[in-house]
Amino acid sequence: MAGRDDLKLLGTWPSPFVTRVKLALALKGLSYEDVEEDLYKKSELLLKSNPVHKKIPVLIHNGAPVCESMIILQYIDEVFAGTGPSLLPADPYERAIARFWMAYVDDKLVAPWRQWLRGKTEEEKSEGKKQAFAAEEKSEGKKQAFAAVEILEGALRECSKGGGFFGGDGLGLVDVALGGVLSWMKVTEVLSGDKIFDAAKTPLLAAWVERFSELDAAKVALPDVGRLLEFAKAREAAAAPSN
Amino acid sequence: MAGRDDLKLLGTWPSPFVTRVKLALALKGLSYEDVEEDLYKKSELLLKSNPVHKKIPVLIHNGAPVCESMIILQYIDEVFAGTGPSLLPADPYERAIARFWMAYVDDKLVAPWRQWLRGKTEEEKSEGKKQAFAAEEKSEGKKQAFAAVEILEGALRECSKGGGFFGGDGLGLVDVALGGVLSWMKVTEVLSGDKIFDAAKTPLLAAWVERFSELDAAKVALPDVGRLLEFAKAREAAAAPSN
Repeated sequence: MAGRDDLKLLGTWPSPFVTRVKLALALKGLSYEDVEEDLYKKSELLLKSNPVHKKIPVLIHNGAPVCESMIILQYIDEVFAGTGPSLLPADPYERAIARFWMAYVDDKLVAPWRQWLRGKTEEEKSEGKKQAFAAEEKSEGKKQAFAAVEILEGALRECSKGGGFFGGDGLGLVDVALGGVLSWMKVTEVLSGDKIFDAAKTPLLAAWVERFSELDAAKVALPDVGRLLEFAKAREAAAAPSN
Repeated sequence: MAGRDDLKLLGTWPSPFVTRVKLALALKGLSYEDVEEDLYKKSELLLKSNPVHKKIPVLIHNGAPVCESMIILQYIDEVFAGTGPSLLPADPYERAIARFWMAYVDDKLVAPWRQWLRGKTEEEKSEGKKQAFAAEEKSEGKKQAFAAVEILEGALRECSKGGGFFGGDGLGLVDVALGGVLSWMKVTEVLSGDKIFDAAKTPLLAAWVERFSELDAAKVALPDVGRLLEFAKAREAAAAPSN
């Protein structure tokens, strides 16, 4: 199936949400056209493909667009069920547990982390939303992100069943959801001076980071930390005068 | 399978998220034990079953807890696949579209509507979060909720394919997700004097409301609008002095 499918991914290279989709595609061994969007000047194709949210990522499969990273991940796993490893378990209860932690990563780690790192996203700014969070809100974001990391340590202990991943022995969509933000977490560690995945406090997660980073899919799909750091610094500098 | 399964639903009767689960259980023809929680004094069973969020609803199936309404809905559909109608389509692309609109209902309608109606939830208050939104934020919530209703009118036109529901001819999880908040929307119409599902502006949705309300599952699962109105008024009165 994979050979005959036409896959086009609309995204930007620094987006952790796009990175997730790239990870899933790499894990499934699927090739695709990587279309870099300019969020300040969105393409007609993006606006037509995601008219409701007008956001990346969008995966266009044989002309049909799928939006929202978590939904795209499940779509890839379902429509390419015969290709590469299964990324969600077959058992309905285990699937529910995986979906729970996927949602947890987004709601309790990624959202607070974004608040911590720099207030609103570029995209939100371009949409005219209020620009920056107050220091208090940033600090609250950091606190919540660290609390989430602790909870995820416990989740990894429970879900991995002695294997190295949230999906057990093999990778699953919780790994992909969290793995997608890994380069950004490393950038945040440099920028903030805080160790997010600390081997002393969360040893399982720290080992998971090492293990995940070594995967072929991660090497292909994750943005380079050095390049991302330059990007983050440039963005911070550009935002500074109006703060 | 249904006869031998032990199902226990931890919730509160006014919660639209619990109502969703009741709707899905009714549509599948499943019987369950309905356990009413006191959110100011949560049961040991709730705290043990959802230690991460400590929130309702929780569906306990043969002793194993599933949390988060949208995840519970998918779990019910998957684990009771042989019982009653399928609530998500079999086709992966149609499933992705259904998941997109389920998320839309939560993020773009329910969240702004909650902001519009009364600021934070009782539960959020009991957790010590800031109590009330400013009038400006309530007005913004209302604006966003109305914008979402218009978008949902278009979605219904597209998804129903001439059938009466988001799921086409039969009901699907988008119908269940939206249907769960129906009694609350009717209460909000009374409290605010605003017509949310207006036959002149959104005729398909207005007809959907009538059609949905007539379903046996809706009659069983939806909270009575009069009782809910009394509840909402009492809560508003209780919150007033501290505003």
